[in-house]
Amino acid sequence: MEDKTVYDILAADLFEVIECGCEEHKNDLEDLTKNLVHLCGWVRSNRDNGSVGFIDFNDGTSFRNIQIVYSSEQNEENTYLECKKMHRGAAIELVGRLVLTPENKQPFEIHVYDGKILADVADDYPLQKKFHTVEFLRSIAHLRVRSNLSSAIFKVRNSLSMAIHSFFQMNRFMYVHTPLITCNDAEGAGETFSVVTKDKDPAAFFGRPVVLTVTGQLHVEAFALAYRNVYTFGPTFRAEHSNTVRHASEFWMIEPEMSFADLNDNMNVIENCIRYCIGYVLDDCKDEMAFFNEHIDHDLIKRLEHVRDTNFKHITYTEAIKEIKKAIASGVKFDNPNIEWGDGLQSEHERYITEKVMKGPTFVTNYPKTMTAFYMRQNDDGKTVANCDLLVPYVGELVGGSQREERYDVLKARMEELGNLSGLEWYLELRKYGCPVHSGFGIGFDRFLMYLTGVNNIRDIQPFPRTSDPIKY
Amino acid sequence: MEDKTVYDILAADLFEVIECGCEEHKNDLEDLTKNLVHLCGWVRSNRDNGSVGFIDFNDGTSFRNIQIVYSSEQNEENTYLECKKMHRGAAIELVGRLVLTPENKQPFEIHVYDGKILADVADDYPLQKKFHTVEFLRSIAHLRVRSNLSSAIFKVRNSLSMAIHSFFQMNRFMYVHTPLITCNDAEGAGETFSVVTKDKDPAAFFGRPVVLTVTGQLHVEAFALAYRNVYTFGPTFRAEHSNTVRHASEFWMIEPEMSFADLNDNMNVIENCIRYCIGYVLDDCKDEMAFFNEHIDHDLIKRLEHVRDTNFKHITYTEAIKEIKKAIASGVKFDNPNIEWGDGLQSEHERYITEKVMKGPTFVTNYPKTMTAFYMRQNDDGKTVANCDLLVPYVGELVGGSQREERYDVLKARMEELGNLSGLEWYLELRKYGCPVHSGFGIGFDRFLMYLTGVNNIRDIQPFPRTSDPIKY
Repeated sequence: MEDKTVYDILAADLFEVIECGCEEHKNDLEDLTKNLVHLCGWVRSNRDNGSVGFIDFNDGTSFRNIQIVYSSEQNEENTYLECKKMHRGAAIELVGRLVLTPENKQPFEIHVYDGKILADVADDYPLQKKFHTVEFLRSIAHLRVRSNLSSAIFKVRNSLSMAIHSFFQMNRFMYVHTPLITCNDAEGAGETFSVVTKDKDPAAFFGRPVVLTVTGQLHVEAFALAYRNVYTFGPTFRAEHSNTVRHASEFWMIEPEMSFADLNDNMNVIENCIRYCIGYVLDDCKDEMAFFNEHIDHDLIKRLEHVRDTNFKHITYTEAIKEIKKAIASGVKFDNPNIEWGDGLQSEHERYITEKVMKGPTFVTNYPKTMTAFYMRQNDDGKTVANCDLLVPYVGELVGGSQREERYDVLKARMEELGNLSGLEWYLELRKYGCPVHSGFGIGFDRFLMYLTGVNNIRDIQPFPRTSDPIKY
Repeated sequence: MEDKTVYDILAADLFEVIECGCEEHKNDLEDLTKNLVHLCGWVRSNRDNGSVGFIDFNDGTSFRNIQIVYSSEQNEENTYLECKKMHRGAAIELVGRLVLTPENKQPFEIHVYDGKILADVADDYPLQKKFHTVEFLRSIAHLRVRSNLSSAIFKVRNSLSMAIHSFFQMNRFMYVHTPLITCNDAEGAGETFSVVTKDKDPAAFFGRPVVLTVTGQLHVEAFALAYRNVYTFGPTFRAEHSNTVRHASEFWMIEPEMSFADLNDNMNVIENCIRYCIGYVLDDCKDEMAFFNEHIDHDLIKRLEHVRDTNFKHITYTEAIKEIKKAIASGVKFDNPNIEWGDGLQSEHERYITEKVMKGPTFVTNYPKTMTAFYMRQNDDGKTVANCDLLVPYVGELVGGSQREERYDVLKARMEELGNLSGLEWYLELRKYGCPVHSGFGIGFDRFLMYLTGVNNIRDIQPFPRTSDPIKY
């Protein structure tokens, strides 16, 4: 075989060349099958029956394993013995022949020509070929990334990140890196982390106390008033001791902001964005999504396809409260049955509205002013603001957005009323200089990823989770 | 004109339709010129000579302004008077006719049909149509984004971010969000910010003291050992009180990591990445780059094109020291003339090597072990490590990378020697389970952006700079 070319190749490229079917890839494939391929990756399993052996090989670039075949008849003794010693978890390199197997589930296999263990694995390797609980996997966050579950999750995480950028760039939104260290607490929640230097004086370094940001919105508004359409996509923080499956103290947010856009424009962009991202991930991550559909939730793909293909619905907060009260009167049971206008919607109410009343993804609009942030635009009724929450079946709230208060006097009065003008004079001042109607929204990236994968604990969705649990990694 | 369609359009789309020249855009253009366009944006300037007026209009989606023409003859009196009142900084909307002007510098103008001020501008608008110093612009960070300089910088910032993602995705690197709150200080520098909750007890929330990360590398290595090729792209922090034009306390880093890659593979990827990103930005930001070339540095584009088209050079640290000593002996003057093997290269030395000795972008490799981080792979000489710094003319260091120490015993001994094993047991443990040769590097995103734009102060490169200056925004 000495006169053959050896092609160094990644598993993902191999799958693409074999499955794409375009003319160029057909030529590549012909070339590959006539020559040899060189692969580097890890052993997922290895079994031999004494004369023929099979390795499930994965180099991390594809979710699917590649089947490697070696045998005492076809291989030289040294190679055969080396292949037999390739244990689960070991890093190996292989030179082999690409053999197409269109009749099998796997479209090809690699027949070993030469193989070598590059880095062996200790006997106490915790990831054995058996079912591991997610709790166990969380305890080995540095190794769980090699499991099927994590592998599927983190590939979708990558894909969703690219879907976000793709959608906004295509629509001429400019990406902005808003600062994480800030002196304002935009939500007024007070649940922020402080940033200090070694001497623990919070004002020592930056001249005043600083915190980790809870939102990039205020900063990115200044950009929207210059570039029209902008978005942030970065980490945000909450020092909440909420020990739930959905809360993390560090998580990524997508925060677009648009000038010359009212609440309806805002809802159109939200709807297009969510539907685009779902479509992107379903196309880009077929293997991973099939895995979730099989192992996590059998309705997942059907549900996502429905959302991708459905026009979202609209209901006001006031109507939603009426619907819930009507339901209670007709005998529907809620854990929180004493809900009145002015109260927040609990998750059970949100799910009732989107699943039973509207039967699909639904925007709830115009919430009471008393329960919303200072920057939301006040409606003429004096009671509500021009905001929206997007509710989706089986999850509840996925996106929150609003028109921003663009009127200097109204915003100033509201900020004074709430006592958060100090330090935000610059934000108010934006209203003096050519500040048109503008709107924006926020998507919790990690929650969106939970929604797309059906994985119901944020600890399994983040690379190294930052929740209220003790930090080990 | 009532039977005409009014197309709502962004400036960037208008420029593209007019300048692209493809068949589809030609049809779009024909349609646009036969009908009316609707634009929303801001006034950059407005001058009228009593009967004809010209507005420089910008909606933020394109760096170039659009010329708007109104006149007392062509427009109804109300429209004409409204247009005259459109002051610099005001938000306006316009309906007008697209008129091609291929003979002029600007390929088209808009003749007003109807116009309206959407949000006026107060008289004390600080951004007047005159030269403002960068120092003044820094003092109005929320408004400077509307200046030409900031506009060019932040558009290139967006473009470079997309170039990074494009390069790594194309090469099958998976994007990973490594955590920012961490319990390890990977560089051992100690210049970290602590993260605390309101009670100021650093261990209260996460069970142990935590800091803001100085690098995502250690975490992303765990991912490289599962997915082969990965990268982070996110914020990192340094609590250094370095009041220079190049230091910030919060900045974005790109940190790729590759399994089965040695130092040479690493340098190949660095070279391909830098050259690709330069080419991408030169193509994607022609107007902005022309602006920098005219106003900041007349050699900028020529220099970048040279780097884009040149193979990078290589020299070892040991050879570099010899060259510098030879230069000193032959009369070249340095501020730091007493340099010996084992000393760090100062910026002046780096620039001498890349500009005078190698005459182009240069990798300096194999630095002394004593001056490098614990995770770099030790060479067989016992004195140096398998690392590299990429030096470029006129800037010095742009990228740093290394092969990582993959040998369990060697790494353990080094970590014990330096006293930083505690809390990083998981990192060491990665070496037990199929840990092949692997490498990675870090690019300071903000410094790369300074290099691409010629802008020499990081305070002008970041949306809301976080340096050792007091925080106002």
